[in-house]
This record gives sequence, structure tokens and C-alpha cells, in this order.
Amino acid sequence: MMQSAGCRTLRLVQLPCATLRATRRARSTRSVSTRALQNSRRPLSNSVSRSFSTQPSRCYAASKEVKFTVDNYPNVKRDARFSQLTREDVDHFKGILSSPSSVVYAEDDASELEGFNTDWVRKYRGKSQLVLKPKTVEEVSEILKYCSKRNLAVVPQGGNTGLVGGSVPVFDEIVVSLSSMNSIRSFDEVSGVLVCDAGVILESADSYLRERNHIFPLDLGAKGSCHVGGNVSTNAGGLRLLRYGSLHGTVLGVEAVLPDGTILNDLQTLRKNNTGFDLKQVFIGSEGTIGIITGISILCPRRSNAVHTAYFGLTSFSQVKKAFIKAKRDLGEILSAFELMDGLTQDLYHTATKKPYPLDSRYPFHILIETSGSNADHDMAKLEAFLEQVMGEEIVADGTLAQDKSQAEELWKWREGLPEACAHWGGTYKYDVSVPLNEFYTLVEDCRKRFEEAGLVGGTTNESKPVVGVVGWGHMGDSNLHLNVPVRWYDKQVEKLLEPWVYEWIQKRKGSISAEHGLGFAKRDYVQYSRDATALEIMRRVKKTFDPQGIMNPYKYIPMDA
Amino acid sequence: MMQSAGCRTLRLVQLPCATLRATRRARSTRSVSTRALQNSRRPLSNSVSRSFSTQPSRCYAASKEVKFTVDNYPNVKRDARFSQLTREDVDHFKGILSSPSSVVYAEDDASELEGFNTDWVRKYRGKSQLVLKPKTVEEVSEILKYCSKRNLAVVPQGGNTGLVGGSVPVFDEIVVSLSSMNSIRSFDEVSGVLVCDAGVILESADSYLRERNHIFPLDLGAKGSCHVGGNVSTNAGGLRLLRYGSLHGTVLGVEAVLPDGTILNDLQTLRKNNTGFDLKQVFIGSEGTIGIITGISILCPRRSNAVHTAYFGLTSFSQVKKAFIKAKRDLGEILSAFELMDGLTQDLYHTATKKPYPLDSRYPFHILIETSGSNADHDMAKLEAFLEQVMGEEIVADGTLAQDKSQAEELWKWREGLPEACAHWGGTYKYDVSVPLNEFYTLVEDCRKRFEEAGLVGGTTNESKPVVGVVGWGHMGDSNLHLNVPVRWYDKQVEKLLEPWVYEWIQKRKGSISAEHGLGFAKRDYVQYSRDATALEIMRRVKKTFDPQGIMNPYKYIPMDA
Repeated sequence: MMQSAGCRTLRLVQLPCATLRATRRARSTRSVSTRALQNSRRPLSNSVSRSFSTQPSRCYAASKEVKFTVDNYPNVKRDARFSQLTREDVDHFKGILSSPSSVVYAEDDASELEGFNTDWVRKYRGKSQLVLKPKTVEEVSEILKYCSKRNLAVVPQGGNTGLVGGSVPVFDEIVVSLSSMNSIRSFDEVSGVLVCDAGVILESADSYLRERNHIFPLDLGAKGSCHVGGNVSTNAGGLRLLRYGSLHGTVLGVEAVLPDGTILNDLQTLRKNNTGFDLKQVFIGSEGTIGIITGISILCPRRSNAVHTAYFGLTSFSQVKKAFIKAKRDLGEILSAFELMDGLTQDLYHTATKKPYPLDSRYPFHILIETSGSNADHDMAKLEAFLEQVMGEEIVADGTLAQDKSQAEELWKWREGLPEACAHWGGTYKYDVSVPLNEFYTLVEDCRKRFEEAGLVGGTTNESKPVVGVVGWGHMGDSNLHLNVPVRWYDKQVEKLLEPWVYEWIQKRKGSISAEHGLGFAKRDYVQYSRDATALEIMRRVKKTFDPQGIMNPYKYIPMDA
Repeated sequence: MMQSAGCRTLRLVQLPCATLRATRRARSTRSVSTRALQNSRRPLSNSVSRSFSTQPSRCYAASKEVKFTVDNYPNVKRDARFSQLTREDVDHFKGILSSPSSVVYAEDDASELEGFNTDWVRKYRGKSQLVLKPKTVEEVSEILKYCSKRNLAVVPQGGNTGLVGGSVPVFDEIVVSLSSMNSIRSFDEVSGVLVCDAGVILESADSYLRERNHIFPLDLGAKGSCHVGGNVSTNAGGLRLLRYGSLHGTVLGVEAVLPDGTILNDLQTLRKNNTGFDLKQVFIGSEGTIGIITGISILCPRRSNAVHTAYFGLTSFSQVKKAFIKAKRDLGEILSAFELMDGLTQDLYHTATKKPYPLDSRYPFHILIETSGSNADHDMAKLEAFLEQVMGEEIVADGTLAQDKSQAEELWKWREGLPEACAHWGGTYKYDVSVPLNEFYTLVEDCRKRFEEAGLVGGTTNESKPVVGVVGWGHMGDSNLHLNVPVRWYDKQVEKLLEPWVYEWIQKRKGSISAEHGLGFAKRDYVQYSRDATALEIMRRVKKTFDPQGIMNPYKYIPMDA
């Protein structure tokens, strides 16, 4: 089907051992290899830096005890206004919750609590003595009414897959888990509107919708564990944002419980409703600080009949920008992903996995383009025309189009396998930032230069240097860059070069220090790099309006003192 | 290009005298014909009902003086907490605004004030003595700082094209017009992000973008006059929402001035930014009640290379629903409009304009479908395939595809000319509502039955009856129905049959009493039909958080007393 363009030829990928794409997003694929451990001079620790995320690695870290957050951050003090939990409180909760299994108390069963106290990246660990798993919005309301009366602090928890420590307690906050509220309430195939409990797992919602020829407008790596309520309360971004927009546009309504137990039933199913303040918007991205989302209604797009995936090599970032403009123009309405990976990321993946490069050569930049449309022939024709254009004009140097699903999945691995590949040498300093496209890649270049000048970069072979390299990839279609510094060991010199330099760099470009991961505990004290004092003051007012006692998810999100 | 399907043939439209589509949306086309005046037993008045909107008709109503809102609604009292404007206040404003023309004071020039005091539908008229036209955000800040100190009430005003009396004073509030803040600040062709002043006229922004191969993600009838800041502050819906989503998804940032003069500079240009509460969302749709939007940043889609328009006849609403599902499936990503018009609307348009019907027969339902895509051949092929399907399965009874731009414009008139056609007999009772698709048209049927049973319907010929008919049309793709009751004269019997019946009907279906027009002054006291007491109480808290003195756009939006 492909035509050659100029002197270049387009190859069809012939990749061995294609595995299911669903697998590559499963949590089990995220483990750090044994080799990573061997190469690590200083073992992964939770105390290096507040902005450091260890590579998600349950199987590795399971062998080590996670340090308590309060020990890592001794400056953070328990708010003395909050009451201490008593046996009477626990008895009260047992009385208001319909099922005995809805109350998990440390004095009854300490082991089950651990999973709720420790976050997914095993960096934060709280000391909660009580987890409550309400089954209805009324039960959530009764819980919060009581907590409010007693001044007991609360952490709402969904799938606990966040990367910034937002969903686990810091001290002894009560965990309210939404895991027992996991029913689809309704789906309308004509309008595409889904109404469901907050505790429905994203993948379950997506599967339910796929059977009905629709998809959830959000997709992300943790889909097998994360809850849709958590997605909404953290305003998750992910892989489909380029095409379907943010949750602020697709979520039509929320059901939420305010800290005083008031139930806000705003589960609208209408695309248009201009009747006063759009309250749900305040809850989207509020990270559990103003109430607990117990249900959502969301507009779901139809499932695309055809999905195509292409992978390209380019010689410079200015060519990448040209390709992006052409893709937006020629692929227009079917463009569903435009992912950038720099050459070094591909080297790391190649070295770590021993897989052959998808193209004959490795280029300074690679992009992965996906289209999703209603007509396979049309989409393929558009993609071919785009390819001829960008190759004819020498915007891309080489490219390959996946011919079937398994080839597409293999190509996607060169993008989605990067977090794992980076962790191969020991660990990674990770930043999830938004940068205006004009300077999208400059952050990586500037950072790389910084480390090279400091003589800290050893590449993949020189084991005497801490830094393997400085790499960047990301959802370029959304201006969302993942700056990663893979290291052999955690090193104070490296940390000092990174912070606050990265945040200052972002601030100068009016970027965002947290594009999609949120603030949680990890970035509370860095938010001023992206939002000014006025915005923060208004945020504090909003917080106080909804949660005057401050019992919801304390110690996180934004600093409550100016 | 078209293939016949079954026993039906598809005709190409041959419509005479095609006029430019731009014209059909211009304000000048909205005048009520002389015949409408002659047939009107009781002249259009402003006192009939708070929910009644006269058909926009500057040239008709210009001959009549608009009654003051306070005379029409004597129960609404001026809030005694607000100060009275003094000559010293005016002198102060003259001192802080850079240009003498920025201050329009009644004692200097009363005539210019009239246009700012009277709303576009000439139903509401305030008694403001002062209009301020700041040129910068700093001037807006100085104005509000002073008003706040002096407790002077303020009405922000954009293009003053609203339909619910939200943009004009009720009493003596100071009008702050954004008309002198009308510059494009920046546009990035790679990301498609436009940053501009709030006072930029929507059509100007769209023209600017079209020259750069993009479009504004919003389009509506008043585009020639309305301001983008007003669009954002009223969360305008319009014609492109089906395709590009709501402003909550496309607006990336706002610059706004709070009632105390604080400038919130939240003009983000990033698609992803999860750093605290998304404050701009509170401003979108707040209708000037919490501050003044002075600038916006917005994500603009690329202009489509190809636009196709088709018009169909269908025999029942259940067939319409089937066609909608098929359109979503087969046209998918290129579907940009799915507009419903019932048969009677087409009769009214036919009678009022004497134009021949687009199809051989008039059907109980007609739909207008528009596609916008990047490849004309592909889009046409999709449309043809869709047509063969829906005609083969007898979902649609007949259809026609426009062959060029002027034919498309002629077809669009059968949808966009309906407000004018309804007003042809005198006036129209209008409701802009959202209804779940399952019962989308039932409201019209139920309402029609009600009037027929009451013996009030005279059709287009029986001049002894007030009601011409009960008709419905709307943006079906967005569940947005326009219920219209064209009448020969305004009649208390008609009003009593309509209200509160329509609102109660909507409330039972969890619809919205204001899909896209907002609340303003007209619907403040009806909002409880769409939002419950809890939501309203939270809204009051939000209002007080941003505007503790209540000086911003008082007497409107939501009732501040429970």
C-alpha cells in the first residue's frame, strides 16, 4: 500500500514476539530488573528528594520497608486541631456502615491497613489506624458528618495509583476508600453518557463501554487499578487527551459529599446546562481536598473502527515541530497521538531490552503517531499522504507503518517502555511538566548540558559516573514533557543540579511543574513555581469555603499559609 | 456522485438566489416583518412574562420605548447597601482612566448611555448614569478597587447580545464595558493557542484565526457583535459544541479582576496544568457575578479543508434517533452538526419565505447534518455511505446533499431562519432547554397537545386563535431543544398553559431550563427547577467567597436568599 517517496523507502515493521498491548500497561510489567539492583551503588530510598519518584516497582520494593513519611519529612507536623481516633469512634463507624467488612481497624487487623497507608511508588507511608469502605453515598455522608463533628482528618482513596503521595495519609488520617462503590449506574448508547460510582476501575468502565461500541475518554498506564473517581478528582490526563480533551470538558456531572456530610447531587447528564456556577469543575482536580466524589457522569466517545500507528525518525527538533504542524493539518480529526521520544531514549530501550531498532538507523528524534477513525481505508490514505509529504519534504528521515495490531503494540513499546528502560540502571529522577512547544525540548538540552559540564554523565557504559544520560519524551500533542535523568545511584550532586533549577526553568517559560500528575504531598511546596501568590490566595479561599475545618486530605495540594 | 438507494433517489439541491451564509447570521436579518406587526392584536410588550423573549427585532422595536425593568418588575427592589453615584465618583473615574472617552456620564451625554442600558432583545432597561470603558486590565482593577471601597454596584458588559438580561443594569449600576479592550495578544500556530482581550468580537477573532488556518472553537448567531470575554463568562454553546466541546474544555486560561480590584493573571497557554484548583473554571459561565474577565487564552482547532451539508426527511422521532446513532457511528470524527427541525417549523419557514421545500415532500421531521474534515473525498464518501445505509434501511425517507457552498447556505436557512419564521405572525414564546435524548421531542408533543386541548391553536390561517402552532428544533447533537410557540398576540391564557408547566416538565426529566442562554435577570427565579437547594446553597457560598459585598452584577444569576 505504501508508495516510496523520494530516495527513501518505507519499511513495514517485522517485529518478533508481539505481545498484547493490554499487557504493557499492566502493573506487573513495571518491575525493576535484577540488573538494576546490582548496578545500584546506593539502594533506592524514600528520603532523597521530595520531587523524586522511584520507578514504580512493587516487586523490588516489597523486600524493603517503606519509611514513614513523617520520618522522611520531620518538618511536617501533625495538625493539633485534629482529634485522635478512639475506640468509640470506631464503634460509631461500625454502627453506621452496613457491612462489618467496611471497617478495617488496626487493632483488629493491622496487616490489611498497610496497603492503604503506603502509596503505589512506595515513597510515602502514613500511620492511619482506620480504613472505611462505604457502599453508598449515604454512608459516605454519615462518615464525613461524624468526622466533621469530631474533627477527625480524612484521606479519600481511589485506586491508590497516584505518583505524588496524594492518596495516602501522612499521619493518622482516616482513609475513606471508594473501592466498595463500584457499580455502573447507567449508560445511554444514544448520547454516550455513562453514569457510575466513583470506585469503578477505569479499565472496567472502558471494557463495559467497548462492549457497547464506546470508549472512556481517558486512558492511562494505571487503568487496571485506578478508579474513575480518582481520575476525576486528580484531573488525570493520559493518552487520549489530544483527541478527546480534558475531563473538564467531558465530565458532565459529579455526585460528591462535602466535609460536613452534605450530599451534592450534581450528576447532570446534559452536555449543555447554563444554570449557575458549574460546581463540578471545582471538584475536578481538587485531589480530595474539598470533599469526596462518589459518582460521576461522563460523555464517552464512540469506539473508532480503525486505529493506525506509525513511527518516524527525524534529524532535529525543528523538523519535529514541522511534522507536528503537518500532522495536525493532514491527519486533522483522526490524529489521536503524537508522542515524542528523543534518540537517547531509544538507545536506552534498545540496550535494556536488546530489541532491534524499529528503523535502520537511530535518529536524534523519533515520533510515534496514532490515528483513530471510522474508516480504515480513509485513515490509511491520509496517513500515506502525510508520509509522502513529510518524507518528500525531508521533514522526517525514515518511517514505518504498523501493518497489524501486534506490530502497532511493538512500536508503542518504544514509547511506553521508556520508564522501565530508564530505571534499568538503578533509578530515575523524573519530572512531569508542561512546556510551550517552542521550547519543548530545550529543557532537555539545557539540562543535559548542565550535567555534561559538571562531568557527571557516564552514558550506558562508564559505571564511575552517576548519570546515565538526560532524556526526554512526552505527549507532544499536549505540550507535556517527561524529563528523565536515569542514574546508577542517587547522588546529592545530581539533586543539587536539578532543583530548584528545573522549577525555575519552567517558571520562566510559564510552564507547569505538574502537567498531569497533580500536587499531592510531593509538590505542595513547589506549586508557587506555576501559580502566583494571587492565584494561591484565591485557592485558599476556595478550600476554606468548602472545607472550613480543613479536615479533607490535609498537608497536601497547596500550602494553607501564605 | 450520489448513488440511488432502494426505490428512493437523492436529488441535488437547485436553490435560487443563494446568499452568503455570513449574512444569515448578521443582526440585520433578524427584523420582524411588517406583516407581523399588522397581524399582532396586542403589540409586543416587555411586561408579559419574565421568561418571554421577544424575537430580536431592533428595527421594529426601535419605534417603541423600552420600559424600565424596575417598572416591569416592581417586586425587585434596589439594594440599599449600594451607594448612589456622585459627581465626585465620576471625577475620580476620569482621573484614573487614561482616555476622556472612557467615561460616559449621563449628565454629560445621556444619549450614548441608552445603548448600554437596554438589552439586545429590548426587554430589559436599566437606569445607569455611568459607563466606563477601560483600556487595560490595570484600569479595570482601579475601577473595581474604587467601586468596592465605595460600595458601588457594577455590571460588566461585553457585546450586550445576551438573551436573558444579564448584561444591562437593573437600577443604577455602573456599566463597565470591555469594548475598548479588543486586541489579539498572541497566537501560536503550532499549538493553536490564542490569547486575546475579552473585548475582541467573536467574528474578528474567528477571521483572524481563519487567515492562519484555524477557527475559534465557538460559533453563534451573534458572532458579529458578541465579545469572546462575554462568551466565556456566559459559557456560550452554539453551533460548534458538538464537535469541539464546551468552553470548559477549550478555554485554557483567563485574566480576571476580582471585585476588590485584585488581578488574577491565570492566562495559561498549556493544555495540561494540574497545579491546584482550576480557578478559570469558576469564571466560565459565572455571568459577571464574581469579577470581570479581561483576557482569555483558548485552544483553537485547525480549519477544516472540507465541509459538507445534507438535509433529510424522516417519518418519526424514533427514526431521527436511529439516524443520530448511525451518524455518530459512520460519520464519527467528521460530524460537526446534527440539527433537528420538526415538520411544522419547515411549514412556517416555507409560508413565511415562500421558498420551495428542499425535498419533494415535507416530512414530520427533518435533520440537517454537517461534516467538517480534512479530506473532501473521504468525507463525501463517508456521507454517501451513511446515506445509502439510512435510506436502505428506510431510516430516512428522502435526502439531499448540497453540492457547493451556496447550496449549503440555502439548506442551513431552513434551520437558522426558524426564529425569524416563527416571529412572522407576531411573536414567539421561546424556551432554550436541555432534555435527555430519549424524551427530546416529547416536550414539544406534550406542549402541542396541551394547546390543542385548550382550543388555542389556529395554525397559519385561523386568525381568531392566538397560537400558530407549537414547534421544536435544536442542536440535537447536544440535547439542546428550542421549544417555540409562535403566536399572533401575547395572551395570558397561553402564558398560563406554558408556565410553570414547561419548567416542571424539564425538572421531572432532570433537564436544564437554560441550556446555553444562561440565567441573567430572566431566569434567576427559575434556577431551582434545574439545580437543587444544596447546589444553590453552595453557589451562594462561592459567590460570597469571590464577591463578599455583592457588588458584581446584582439582582441576577441566582437568588442570594435561600
